[in-house]
Amino acid sequence: MEDKPTNLPRTRPDGGELKPLTEVLLERRATNHFTDEEVPEEYLNAILRLAAQAPSGYNLQPWRFVVVRNAENRKRLKSVAFGQEKVGEAPVVVIFVGMKEEWKRTADEIFREGAERGAGRPDNVEQYKVSAFQFLEGMQHMPTWVNRHTAIAMTTMMYAAEAYGFDTAPMEGFDAAAVRAEFGIPEEGEVVALLAIGRARQPDKAYPGRFPLERIAFSERFGEAWKEK
Amino acid sequence: MEDKPTNLPRTRPDGGELKPLTEVLLERRATNHFTDEEVPEEYLNAILRLAAQAPSGYNLQPWRFVVVRNAENRKRLKSVAFGQEKVGEAPVVVIFVGMKEEWKRTADEIFREGAERGAGRPDNVEQYKVSAFQFLEGMQHMPTWVNRHTAIAMTTMMYAAEAYGFDTAPMEGFDAAAVRAEFGIPEEGEVVALLAIGRARQPDKAYPGRFPLERIAFSERFGEAWKEK
Repeated sequence: MEDKPTNLPRTRPDGGELKPLTEVLLERRATNHFTDEEVPEEYLNAILRLAAQAPSGYNLQPWRFVVVRNAENRKRLKSVAFGQEKVGEAPVVVIFVGMKEEWKRTADEIFREGAERGAGRPDNVEQYKVSAFQFLEGMQHMPTWVNRHTAIAMTTMMYAAEAYGFDTAPMEGFDAAAVRAEFGIPEEGEVVALLAIGRARQPDKAYPGRFPLERIAFSERFGEAWKEK
Repeated sequence: MEDKPTNLPRTRPDGGELKPLTEVLLERRATNHFTDEEVPEEYLNAILRLAAQAPSGYNLQPWRFVVVRNAENRKRLKSVAFGQEKVGEAPVVVIFVGMKEEWKRTADEIFREGAERGAGRPDNVEQYKVSAFQFLEGMQHMPTWVNRHTAIAMTTMMYAAEAYGFDTAPMEGFDAAAVRAEFGIPEEGEVVALLAIGRARQPDKAYPGRFPLERIAFSERFGEAWKEK
């Protein structure tokens, strides 16, 4: 395991301040067309390392990121992603993979190191492991579990990239089996999403609106519409 | 549909600046014990409205938030969440629900209003709807789809709350059928996660570490370890 990253860029590539999260959340739109301007290596590393800070159940981190930058490879990815042009255009497209089995082999290392770092007591590691395995093997549908977790990491990466001033496009349209075959992803790896990162080529598309809170939020019980005071 | 929220608080409740996203991502820890200090109504509304800005496939927004604040209800929720103390302690616990069927009834309204707002052309709405239904009914395992989407909204809410200076704890340990029964959640609603929001009662637990990038990120192809330049 590693410590928190310490040497992240403190500004956007043009020297401007990072966008506040409120601006990121309100101004972010899914980008349909990208320029070919590259994401500087220092920023790409920072974006990946920030995504790796996302929370996961038992700290199992079941997400994996396949970073595709080579133009030929993006063309191959585009062909298994319903021909979406942004996959061919964006300088970086990340394939998010959720590993359904690998945690069984890494849990021991994760729990022992966590305990050494002060998160939990070393003499509880075995008990903790038993309860984690019981919970995951007994109660969880693993494709659902890794989708949920990997979506958390994807969301984290998307907002980190936007805070640094880049444009992004999350995608769920692809032939998962073909993506797996093209990029050497093992059978246990669920292809959860793609995320394009780069610079928008044209102004953002219009904001399509959102449900008002009283339609999606409830107070105390499902169906009791939330009222803003 | 609604426009973007415009009147969000510009500071934390104590007047301090919002945390930058980099600080949120690096300093956030899952909180185990909360004080009973309430989340001010203005902030809770802002956090909910920011979460509602999360992206979703076709803008279908399949997430629903059941906001539980009443102490008796939190006690009931705790009893179906493996007795986790934070559920009883935190002043706000949000139950995240993903709706597997409701989008079929709301898609028409979403697409028409989106087109009116300039996101897509009005004469393409029918075709767009056909392709959305084809994609979702044909290719997607709906529990997985709503888990993925609802996790995006949950992640967004967690970071929004943290940016405003609150502490949070995402949870996946609960008896979903019992949560559904206790809070009137319909059969089609997947209980995806819980999120506690409030103020930590004690210092954060230790950082358990993360996998280094070379173990979770790959360059161009799964298995080709990412190297930081």
